[in-house]
Amino acid sequence: MPLSFYQASAQVFVHALGNLSAILEKGALYAESRKIDPVVMCGLRLTADMLPLSRQVSTACDSAKLAVSRLSGVEAPKHADEEKDFVELQSRIAKTLDYIRSVPEASVEAAAGRKVSLKLGGEPREFEPEAYLTLFALPNFYFHVTTTYAILRANGVELSKRDYLGAILG
Amino acid sequence: MPLSFYQASAQVFVHALGNLSAILEKGALYAESRKIDPVVMCGLRLTADMLPLSRQVSTACDSAKLAVSRLSGVEAPKHADEEKDFVELQSRIAKTLDYIRSVPEASVEAAAGRKVSLKLGGEPREFEPEAYLTLFALPNFYFHVTTTYAILRANGVELSKRDYLGAILG
Repeated sequence: MPLSFYQASAQVFVHALGNLSAILEKGALYAESRKIDPVVMCGLRLTADMLPLSRQVSTACDSAKLAVSRLSGVEAPKHADEEKDFVELQSRIAKTLDYIRSVPEASVEAAAGRKVSLKLGGEPREFEPEAYLTLFALPNFYFHVTTTYAILRANGVELSKRDYLGAILG
Repeated sequence: MPLSFYQASAQVFVHALGNLSAILEKGALYAESRKIDPVVMCGLRLTADMLPLSRQVSTACDSAKLAVSRLSGVEAPKHADEEKDFVELQSRIAKTLDYIRSVPEASVEAAAGRKVSLKLGGEPREFEPEAYLTLFALPNFYFHVTTTYAILRANGVELSKRDYLGAILG
């Protein structure tokens, strides 16, 4: 059996968003222990013209949500990008997980053979669903999860690859 | 048609390693323009106890190489982690691409239904090939590619999501 679309998208996002939630929990505990304002912590950036931690998290959430929506055709809820602290970011992740878990596996599998349409830089584009998932949605998602990890790590939060990969490492 | 193992592994790695090579080329040009020793540039880290850029690149290469090897059963060449500058890192990427391209598609597809065995922290572990690829090999690979990007970006190299995602964005 080759890979199923559901396994390679929805299941991956559910697993990785759970790991992201646990990483943010460690960030929140670190901020608390050092009496750092969580809003300051969630506003940290790797460099001035990269997104702050809060928007890395919400962009990761939207990458996952939109991938499942575009593959399945099941409309996704809109979420304003207004989260400012760890509590609000955890809520954004929870809402994203609720949506992904609500999409039937069969709807995601129906992606096979159907083109994915989206706008990139204002231009409409069409992709084969395989290319969309493997060359756009997944790398984009991991980009924002890893950058979240990197911001926290570069600012002193103790994290390891085990936090990023999660339970598969046992 | 669901996703094929080849499409979700070898093809992804070839695409993303090409992007990584182009990102490093921009890093090399930046170093040259600022008269920064390439060895210094390749030794940069996001924080003291994370791997330097050179090892982020070689670990990304090994994540890709070992994933294709474990899925296909085709033995991978060993590469010492001794690269110190951009030229040597480009050569490491090229050798990795040579190996991945040499593995027959049918051998990678034969992963389906066969367990993947590896050692994690010295302990032997067995994974279903789907879980191994989607929850371990791919996120681990993107972790090191994104961290390479982050190190260069945080040190002034002009890069955008287009460099990371590559030609799919057109």
